[in-house]
Amino acid sequence: MRAAIAELRRSGHRISAPRRQVLEALYAASAPVSADEIAGGLDGRFSSSDPASVYRTLELLERTGLARHVHLGHGPGRYAPASVGERDYFVCERCEQVRAADPRALEPVREAIARAFGWRVRFNHFPIAGLCPRCAEEADGAGYGS
Amino acid sequence: MRAAIAELRRSGHRISAPRRQVLEALYAASAPVSADEIAGGLDGRFSSSDPASVYRTLELLERTGLARHVHLGHGPGRYAPASVGERDYFVCERCEQVRAADPRALEPVREAIARAFGWRVRFNHFPIAGLCPRCAEEADGAGYGS
Repeated sequence: MRAAIAELRRSGHRISAPRRQVLEALYAASAPVSADEIAGGLDGRFSSSDPASVYRTLELLERTGLARHVHLGHGPGRYAPASVGERDYFVCERCEQVRAADPRALEPVREAIARAFGWRVRFNHFPIAGLCPRCAEEADGAGYGS
Repeated sequence: MRAAIAELRRSGHRISAPRRQVLEALYAASAPVSADEIAGGLDGRFSSSDPASVYRTLELLERTGLARHVHLGHGPGRYAPASVGERDYFVCERCEQVRAADPRALEPVREAIARAFGWRVRFNHFPIAGLCPRCAEEADGAGYGS
């Protein structure tokens, strides 16, 4: 996080208290979080803050390459610090569990799709959706609706 | 479309003119369309209609299994008649082109993911995102931002 603050300063941005709190929340969260979750204080771990200011700060962090967003299901985009490295994501359409995966583990899948379809795909911005192992087991014989 | 109307009647639903128009638009579209596109008349092919009524009709069609929605990128969900059969989708994050694929073509990909991760995934509700062949070629050497 210190490196992110230094980078913001270097690009001419002031580190206001609200901006610092967004950074702290992003780095404290163990998974990508939405702007509203950050504004709500992450279940009491931080004080709550103005949603519009949180949105603007997240936009600034994306523009400066310090954060990324991913779309996990029907809800709003969720943000993670860029410094945690690229992640591919799975999201369970039933229990909404999110699994992060090392992109190298999905490289053979991307290559197979490129060979068969000519598309260069990625799973870090829009994840792979489906059923997690537990929900897949529970769904067997029970159907799998949308 | 006649079968869909018969099915709606069978399940006790009235076929009002607005409902009929939503069905006509769904079947006339060559790709999944949003509620707003239907309400707007699909570029002059139909008269425009009340968005709230279109939304309610699409919900009814989904509930009765006559339509499905898919999330193609950042925008709203898009609907297709269920009778066109299951489709897997790719969406280009750059030019927004949508490609539909026969689900059988992606079965090896689903199997590889199931073996490696234990997840049972699908690409018909949330599509595979990335770059179409043309945009992938253009992006070579130009970077690929989010």
